[in-house]
Amino acid sequence: MIEIITIGDELLIGQVVNTNASWMAEEINGVGWSVRQITSVSDNAEEIRRALEEASLRADVVLMTGGLGPTKDDITKDVLCNYFSTRLVLHEAVLQNIESFFRRKGLPLTGLNRDQAMVPESARVIENPMGTAPGLAFEKDGKLFVAMPGVPYEMKHIMEVFVLPELVKSSDSQVIVHKTILTQGIGESFLAKMIEDWENSLAPDIKLAYLPSPGIVRLRLSMRGTDRMMMEAKIAEKVDELQKLIPVYIWGEGKETLEENVGKLLKERNKTLSTAESCTGGLIAHRITSVPGSSGWFAGSVIAYDNRIKIQMLAVNAEVLEMQGAVSKEVVEEMASGVQKILQTDYAIAVSGIAGPDGGTDEKPVGTVWIAVAGPQGVVSRKFLFGDERMRNIQRSSTAALAMLREQILNVK
Amino acid sequence: MIEIITIGDELLIGQVVNTNASWMAEEINGVGWSVRQITSVSDNAEEIRRALEEASLRADVVLMTGGLGPTKDDITKDVLCNYFSTRLVLHEAVLQNIESFFRRKGLPLTGLNRDQAMVPESARVIENPMGTAPGLAFEKDGKLFVAMPGVPYEMKHIMEVFVLPELVKSSDSQVIVHKTILTQGIGESFLAKMIEDWENSLAPDIKLAYLPSPGIVRLRLSMRGTDRMMMEAKIAEKVDELQKLIPVYIWGEGKETLEENVGKLLKERNKTLSTAESCTGGLIAHRITSVPGSSGWFAGSVIAYDNRIKIQMLAVNAEVLEMQGAVSKEVVEEMASGVQKILQTDYAIAVSGIAGPDGGTDEKPVGTVWIAVAGPQGVVSRKFLFGDERMRNIQRSSTAALAMLREQILNVK
Repeated sequence: MIEIITIGDELLIGQVVNTNASWMAEEINGVGWSVRQITSVSDNAEEIRRALEEASLRADVVLMTGGLGPTKDDITKDVLCNYFSTRLVLHEAVLQNIESFFRRKGLPLTGLNRDQAMVPESARVIENPMGTAPGLAFEKDGKLFVAMPGVPYEMKHIMEVFVLPELVKSSDSQVIVHKTILTQGIGESFLAKMIEDWENSLAPDIKLAYLPSPGIVRLRLSMRGTDRMMMEAKIAEKVDELQKLIPVYIWGEGKETLEENVGKLLKERNKTLSTAESCTGGLIAHRITSVPGSSGWFAGSVIAYDNRIKIQMLAVNAEVLEMQGAVSKEVVEEMASGVQKILQTDYAIAVSGIAGPDGGTDEKPVGTVWIAVAGPQGVVSRKFLFGDERMRNIQRSSTAALAMLREQILNVK
Repeated sequence: MIEIITIGDELLIGQVVNTNASWMAEEINGVGWSVRQITSVSDNAEEIRRALEEASLRADVVLMTGGLGPTKDDITKDVLCNYFSTRLVLHEAVLQNIESFFRRKGLPLTGLNRDQAMVPESARVIENPMGTAPGLAFEKDGKLFVAMPGVPYEMKHIMEVFVLPELVKSSDSQVIVHKTILTQGIGESFLAKMIEDWENSLAPDIKLAYLPSPGIVRLRLSMRGTDRMMMEAKIAEKVDELQKLIPVYIWGEGKETLEENVGKLLKERNKTLSTAESCTGGLIAHRITSVPGSSGWFAGSVIAYDNRIKIQMLAVNAEVLEMQGAVSKEVVEEMASGVQKILQTDYAIAVSGIAGPDGGTDEKPVGTVWIAVAGPQGVVSRKFLFGDERMRNIQRSSTAALAMLREQILNVK
C-alpha cells in the first residue's frame, strides 16, 4: 500500500488543482500497487510531520510532492531532516546540475537556486535534470519515503526514473488488473439499467466502477490476485459480453481520448478533417491538435464566432442564416459543407449553439446545440439540448461532435 | 478548521482529477475559514469511516463529496447511517425531486434512481435540484458533517445554498485576508530575486506564496486576524509597493484569467479581435470564447494548421513561406495582418511554432514559437523558446500570445 502526501498552501486554498496526485495514482496502479490515501496538507512543518507519521503507519511507501522549490514558502527539507534525524549538507552533483541547468537556459544563478543544492545528508539523491530541486529518498523502519518537487514534469521524471522502477522491484506477487471501457452518448443511470443483468453476472472478485465526465461514462473493471493471465482472460470475457450488449455506445478503452481515437481512425484511412466552430470557439480544433502528429489529418478550422464570418468565410447563405438563425439545422449543415469544400478535406465538423449564459430564447434555450458532420456520404446533423452551464455546454458539444464524426467514419448508428 | 474528504476509487486510481476539493477549498477560504487537510479515500466502508473519524478529531466541520451516486460502487450512505447510528428511510420530497428531475428531462425513472430517495433518518436533507442525490447534513459532538454528491455542479449548488451560509453564520471573529497578484513573463526564481528586498520587508504576520503555472506566476499575500479593514489596508500598501517594483510583469489580481482581462480591456475600448493559429490549434480562440459575452469582442479565427491554408485563407505570401518556413517572423506577421484584414478586426493574434514532439530542427528546435500581434499601430512580433513538452508548449504559447496582446492594447513594455 502506498500513500501520497501533496504539500502546499495553494492546494488548501484551492488555487491549484491536484493533478500531481491523480497522475501518480494512475502510474502506481499501473505497476500493481494500490494507493490507500491521498493527503494534502499546508506548508507548515507540524502538519507535514503529522501527515508523514500517520501515512507511515498505514503504508509501506510514502510519496511526497511539493515544498521543495527555491522560494521561502517551501520548508519540506527541514521537516525531512528533523524526521529522519539528519542535517542539510551541500551536494556537489546537485550544485553542478543546477549550474548547468541555468547555463543551458542562458540564465543567471541566484542564491536561492544555489540553496537547492543543500540536501539531507542521509537521503539518496535522485537527479532532476528538468529542474533544480532533486528528489530525495529515505528508508526508515523498512519503509520507503520519497520527496519530490511539486512541478509536474519534474515530479514525473523522478517517478519514472526512480519510484516506479523501485516499486516494480519490491512488488509482492499480488497484482491488479484493470480494464476501462469508454462509452459516449448515454447517461450513467441509463447505462447502469441497460447493463444491470451483465453487472449482476460479474464474479464477486471483479469490481465495477462508473466514472462519469461531461458526455462520457467510463466503466472500469478491476480484479486483484496473483494470476495475471487468468484475471486478464476473465475480464476480457466480460468485456466481450459488454461489447455485444452496447456496441453503439462503446468507442474505446483505457486511457485513450476521443480525439486520439478519431485521429487514429482518420490516419488509418488516410482521410483529412476540418472544423467550422461557432459556440465551441476552437475547442474541437484544440482537442484534435492536442494529439501528436495531428498535422497528418487535420487541415485547419474556421472559428466563425461572428455571423458575418459564417457568410464570408464558410459561404453560408445569408438569407438562410437570417430566416433560420445561426443555431439551426440548415446553417450548421452549410457550415460543415462549406468548410469541407473550402479547406478540401474528406470530413468536416460544424457546431453552432447557444453556450450561454445569454442568447437563449423560449424556442432555443441556452444549451441548444446543432452539430453537423460532412463526409464522403453527405452531411448528417443532430440537435442536442445540454444544460445551463457555459463551459459544460462547450465541453459536451465538443465531445458529441467528435463522437458524431467517429460514427460517420465507422458508419455506425 | 475544516477538513474535506473526497471519496471514490476513481481518485485513488488516478482516473479523475480532484477539482472538487480545490473549488471547495477556495470557497471556504473566501468566507474566512481554513482547510486543514484534504483526504481522498476509496469507496470502501472501513476507509471512509476511518477518514471520517480522523477528520472529526482535527476539524470543526467535515465536508464529504462523492459516493452518493445511483450505481453500485457508491456506499457512503450506509457508512453514514452506521457512523451516526441511524437508518435509511424514504424521503418524500427527495422522491418528488427525483421524479420531477426525470420528467423535466423527458427520461424514464429507474429503480436505481428511486433508491436515491432513501436517506439517513437523522440527516438534514439539502435539496439538489441539479441532480438526484440530495446533500445530507449531520451534527455530532457539536461538529457539522455534510455529505454531498461528487458531480461538480451538484456539489457546488449544495455548497452555495447550505454549506457556505452555515459557515458564515458560525464563523468566529478570526478572518483571513488574501490578495493574489498575477504576473506573467518572468520565472519564479527570477521574480523572487527581483522582489527579495520587498519580500523581506513584509511584516511577519503577512504570508507570501509563489504559485507558478505555465507562463504565469501568482503571488499570494495572506494575513489572519480579527480586524479585516486594518489587514486589507496593510496588504494593499504592500501590493502598491509591488506594483511600482515590477509594473511590467503584473497583469491582474485575484481569480481573473488572462483571457478575462484581455476581454475586459477590449470591451472597454470597444475594440475587436481575431486570431490566426497554427501550433496553438485553436486554444487561444477557445480561451477567449470561454469568457461569457466574448461574442462582443471576438470575431473569429482561422486555424491554419496546414500551410496551404495559411496561403489560401490568410493571404500569406507563398514565396515567403517557402523561403523562411512557417515558423518565422515574416510568416507570423503576415498571418496576423492577414486575419486582421480579412476578419476586419482592430487587433489580431497570430502564432506559428513547433509544439513537438516531431518537426524540430537544429536551427528551429521543438519549442520554438513565433507570436505576432497586429493592432492599430502596426504589427509586433517576438520569438519564444519554450520546452520539449507538446501540451506545455501549446499552453505557454497561448498565454504568451494573450500577454502580448495585452501589452499592445495598453501600450506597455
